[in-house]
Formats: sequence, C-alpha cells, structure tokens
Amino acid sequence: MILGHFAHVRPPYLVAQSDTLDWLAQAHARTEARQNPDLSLADQEALARKMHALLRRYGCPETRIKTRGVVIPDFTHQNWEAMELFGGTKDPLGPFVEERNCVLQKAGREACTALFPASAEPPAHLIHVSCTWYVSPSCAQERVVQNGWERETVVTHAYHMGCYAAMPALLMARGFLAGATPMERGGRDGRVDLLHTEFCSGHLQTHDHSPEQLVVQSLFADGSIRYSAFRDGSGLAAAAENGPATGLQLSTLHEIMIPDTLTAITWECSARGMKMGLSREVPALIAAHLDGFLEALCARGNRSKADLLRTAQFAIHPGGPKIIDEIQRLCGLAPEQTELSRIILRDYGNMSSATLPHVWELICGETGIPVGTPVVSLAFGPGLCISGGLFEKVGAR
Amino acid sequence: MILGHFAHVRPPYLVAQSDTLDWLAQAHARTEARQNPDLSLADQEALARKMHALLRRYGCPETRIKTRGVVIPDFTHQNWEAMELFGGTKDPLGPFVEERNCVLQKAGREACTALFPASAEPPAHLIHVSCTWYVSPSCAQERVVQNGWERETVVTHAYHMGCYAAMPALLMARGFLAGATPMERGGRDGRVDLLHTEFCSGHLQTHDHSPEQLVVQSLFADGSIRYSAFRDGSGLAAAAENGPATGLQLSTLHEIMIPDTLTAITWECSARGMKMGLSREVPALIAAHLDGFLEALCARGNRSKADLLRTAQFAIHPGGPKIIDEIQRLCGLAPEQTELSRIILRDYGNMSSATLPHVWELICGETGIPVGTPVVSLAFGPGLCISGGLFEKVGAR
Repeated sequence: MILGHFAHVRPPYLVAQSDTLDWLAQAHARTEARQNPDLSLADQEALARKMHALLRRYGCPETRIKTRGVVIPDFTHQNWEAMELFGGTKDPLGPFVEERNCVLQKAGREACTALFPASAEPPAHLIHVSCTWYVSPSCAQERVVQNGWERETVVTHAYHMGCYAAMPALLMARGFLAGATPMERGGRDGRVDLLHTEFCSGHLQTHDHSPEQLVVQSLFADGSIRYSAFRDGSGLAAAAENGPATGLQLSTLHEIMIPDTLTAITWECSARGMKMGLSREVPALIAAHLDGFLEALCARGNRSKADLLRTAQFAIHPGGPKIIDEIQRLCGLAPEQTELSRIILRDYGNMSSATLPHVWELICGETGIPVGTPVVSLAFGPGLCISGGLFEKVGAR
Repeated sequence: MILGHFAHVRPPYLVAQSDTLDWLAQAHARTEARQNPDLSLADQEALARKMHALLRRYGCPETRIKTRGVVIPDFTHQNWEAMELFGGTKDPLGPFVEERNCVLQKAGREACTALFPASAEPPAHLIHVSCTWYVSPSCAQERVVQNGWERETVVTHAYHMGCYAAMPALLMARGFLAGATPMERGGRDGRVDLLHTEFCSGHLQTHDHSPEQLVVQSLFADGSIRYSAFRDGSGLAAAAENGPATGLQLSTLHEIMIPDTLTAITWECSARGMKMGLSREVPALIAAHLDGFLEALCARGNRSKADLLRTAQFAIHPGGPKIIDEIQRLCGLAPEQTELSRIILRDYGNMSSATLPHVWELICGETGIPVGTPVVSLAFGPGLCISGGLFEKVGAR
C-alpha cells in the first residue's frame, strides 16, 4: 500500500501562540469572574495576571508552537460580547455540545467540499477519521452523496480513538484494499481515501484551570487533511496531475498498549464538549516502552533497528514538544531526523489525528528527502497505546 | 471469512413492553409537570393519560416487542425519587451526558468481563462497535489490558455509524484478516473478535414528546454481543469446545447510500445524551431502493437473486416491525425466511448495531436451518445507508 495525493486545508483562522496564551488567560479569568460576580475590577485583573502566569508556566511556549489554526473566529479577538461560542454571555461554564456542534458542522462541510471536489474520481472507500466531532450522517457521507458517489464509495467512520487514529485508519485502509473479493472489485484496482477533520478548539473548557487543561488548551489545534491509499505505484502515478508524484510505501504496522496506564490519557464526552485527561507522566511512560516497541516493529518489518535509527526520517506525532525531544534523545537521532515533526508542531500545533498525516505530506513534498529514504512513524494515544509503522519514500512507477 | 463463536449477555434488567409504555407515559408526563409547577394534580393525571394514548398510537406495540433488556434499573420501577438517572429530581430535562456515562461505563465493563474471560485465547484484533457510548480508553481496551493481551491484541473502534454498524465492522474484520503481511502474522492464522455494546436506554429524552421520539424510545433497547471472524473452518473448529460448531461464511458485502435522504435518520451528541432523528418515511425510502440493491449485491456475489429469494434465510436488521414486513412483502418471501429477525425484535427490541449479530447467532444455533443454507443480511442506517452481505451457514471443517 502506498500513501499519496496528500492535500490539507488550513482552518480559516490562524492565531499566533502569544495571542493564544493571552486570550486563554483572559477567557479563564472571565469565566471565574462570571461565577463570582462580587469580584472587584482589581480582583479580576489580578485573576487575569494569575492565569497569565499559569499559562506561561504550563502552556506550550511560543518557542515550540508559533501558529495554530482554528475554525472558530472567537480566538482571533477579545470582543467578548461578539463571541460565537466562548463569550460566556449565556452561561459562564460555556456552551453546550449542540451549540458547539453547529459551528463545527459548518467547518466540517467546508473542509469536505475543498478536499473532495465533485470533479474528482470517486474512491472505492472513504475512511473518515475524527476524535473531535461526530454526527451521523457525517460530512464525509454528505459529500459522497453531493458528488453522486453514493453507489461507488463506501464511507466508514474511525472515530474517538485519539491522536494515534491515523494508524488504525491505515490498518483499515490496507485491509479494504486487500480484503475485497475480485467480484466486488469488478476488475478495478480500487483506491481508499482517508479524511481527517479534527476540531479540538470546539471543546475548550475555560472553567477548568488545572495545569493539565492549560497544557491541552495551548497545545491542540484544528486541522483537516486528506490522502489516498493506493494498491501500488501505478495508482499513485495516475493520481498525480503534474510533475513527479511521491508517496510512502507501507511495509508494516504494529501497535501495543502499556499496562497500568489506562488513566494517563482519557477522552470522553461531556455536556460542554469532549474532555481530555492528560497526565504529565505520558512522555516518561512512552519513553520507558519505546525501545521494546521499536524492536518489535523492526522485527515485524524484517529491518535492522540500528540501520533505521541511523538513516530513517522519524514522523513522530508531536503530542507535545517533550515527546519529540525525548524520542530523539532515547534513540540517539540527529535533529534532522525529527525536524519535520517539529516543523508541523511549530506551524500547526497538535491537530490530534490529523497531525501525523501533515508530517507525512511534508516528507513526500520535501525534495531534500530522496526516494528510498526509510520512514518510521510513531503515534500515541489513550490506553496508553503506542502505534507505529515502517514506510519508504517512493516515486510513482 | 467465517463468523462464529457467538455469545451475548442479556442486560441485567428485562422489561415487559406493556410496562415500558406505561413507564414512558409517566416519565414524559412528570417531565412536563416539573417544567410547569402550576399544573394541578388533575392536570397532571390528564397529561399522563394523554402521553399514554400517544404511546399507544406511536410506540412499538406489545404484539411486536414483548421484552427489552436495559442496563439502567430506573425502567423497572416507578419510585421516581429512587431513580438513578431519570427521576428528574435534579433537572426536569434529565441528566447530563457525564452522569449517563458513569452508569453506561459500569455496564460496558460488566459486558466485557463476561464476554472476554481471562482464560480465552487472545485475538489478533478486537473491533469494538458502538453507536451509543464512547470513552477512550474503551472498555475493550481496558479488558485487553486486564487480560494481559496488550502486546497481542490490537483494539480498533467502530463508533457512531448507526444500526448498520455490524456491516462496516465485518468489512474491517475481513480486511484485518486479509491485510497483514506474513511477517506481521508471525506464522499465526490470526482471529478477529468483534464486540458490540449498545446502550440505547442511556440516551432517553423525556422532554421531547414528538411522535418520532416516542417511536424511538419504545423501540430501542440495550444489548452486548461478541463473535469471532475466522479465516477458515479450522479456526471455527478450534474455537468450539463442545459439539458441532456452526458459522456463517461470508461471500460478499455491498453498501450504498440513497440520494436525498440525509435527514431521514440522524444521530448526534447533545448535552443530555445522543439524539436520534427518525423520519416515518424510512421504510418506504428503503423499500424503493431495495430491489436494485439486492440485484447489485447478488451480482457481486455471483448468485442468482431469484434463487436466494426462494431459499435464503433473511437476517434483516429489525429497525422496526414495518421494515421486516415491507421487505418480506417486496421480495415475496415466506414468513419463515424472516422469522428469526422478528423473534429477535420480539424478545430483545432494537439493540442498534448489536441486533443483527443476535440474528446471526440464532441462525447458527437453529438446528432447523441446515448447513448450506444461504443467508442474506440487510441493515440500514443514517445516510440513508443500505448495507448487505451474502453468507452461507457452514459447519466446522
């Protein structure tokens, strides 16, 4: 299976991290003030300063994230009365899920329209991946019907798995390509398209000032990306309209859970959006199991771990700045081997399951990375789950 | 691929449909009364009688559902002060999602423990299917870790698709069996287990008295079931501990959406549980596209439609009583060909995606249905989506 034909849409609003940290401090302080109407103006200002200091301490710094994209205009200004969702005018605890969903639905539809033009060739399958917004029928199903593909394209949802969800989506895509009987394929080669729509910003909880929430709120961002899984290079070549097409050929996938870490990352629905639990121990817990995981991954792929550590590009889900640093240190990698994961974190933030595909897109497009370069992909999620894959950068054949 | 080794757990509480209709009438009337505290006792009694009449008119009658299983004890009594969720003591509009989830989480854990004993052989994959309760890590992931399978079993979530979700889950299972490289399989044959936990009762909305909600609330029920997908009959035989094992061998799968029906069935998250939209046109819309769908399904499976209509068992998702009657009439089937779908509806209610696997289990276990009998499976969901499969009942070889 070869991944290629990547395309992403940036969310309509790009926010500098320094502005985000300031906005979050004000939003948290306002939420607190609304619940305590007796606070004086001086108290409120002190509260905002305190929140600012907490965000400077726990939030993701501007040195690691420069810009994040969001689908909600609220984050671009501080005119609180004019906020769509987070003005706290109706309820200081923030809007209910149904109000949030209305805004996200619009964003999901826009992303689908941009990424699946009616003129495109219909895929045999479309896997819609999201951890942050579900409605059925989904925007993917809507788009398939709008494009008249309803008899040709089967939509499958891969929802609520977490940041690592691109990996189970690849598992599904590979299976869909391999599993169909010849009769079902009707002589066609098939193509599986994958779509990630992640709208983390829709789940902001400004009434929870815990350090873990400040980490989450300053780290996560919105993003939408699509790509195709082809059976072989001829599919990749056919999909490329101009110039040389490059892709990532999958060699093997592997996934484990780490015992005794069920509460380290959690993700659940609540009345006011989905809620994340994130322990500060996560980088250390992953680090402790990484070497064994890489051994098993390389054994499955029949590759030498030492060779890969020396020569591969590492597409690491940038859960946070620490995890990339920690993996680089543990594996003795050169900074260039993890640079693209850092670039995506810097320019986009953590877009949950959409992040790793952005790194893959960058690897395919980066002419400095020659065809033939091995690629190791690593992602992490609730469980704790470590999921990985071995790939090689390929050109269309 | 052969499906077998079915096992289900009935929810802890079984409720007669006549009691359900009465309970719902009282619960709806109480919700209304709590929002209008000026209502006299006589007004309240009149309201209860009105709700009773509406439920007799729109609700699923006792002639079609006799018993439903639920995981929430509230439905078994009318001591409203003692209700866990639906007493309306805190908020007449009902509990928020987080309270509902606590009750459902307990039920999910109990089902997993019963269906995946620690003594079982770990599967290579476990697909957790649900449209009604998501948390990450899931009860499936928890159970895998509890059983010490965290390095052997990969859990994948198939969430928020709708009543037809058993079909995409089969698509995934077939792919997982076919897609792994020999190196990944490590010489083993692999086995994919599937788990459905559906807790529709957790999403009750007693403040919405619309006819469609009364249909939904009197029709849907809770259910949990597991089964295995084996590569071939030897896997089925190995899994059977006593007596002859039977299974369903998959020949082909097919799925389409019907244009212009995006709003006919909807399913979305809200602050007080998930909300279903269900148009009364659904049976007619499906009926209008059924023949074309069956033609395509049979062509893909290289089977004669006429033969199948004459000889096959029809495992139809019993969305409601009408859809089974309608399909039987349209296809000119004998009542015996659809009887098992009716029996599951009668004894269990509509358990969303868990329903069709209960019908499959019954077909496998029913000695009156000989090995060699063809089976046509049909399911429906948001989109509108029609999903189907051709199977044959087989014995272990």
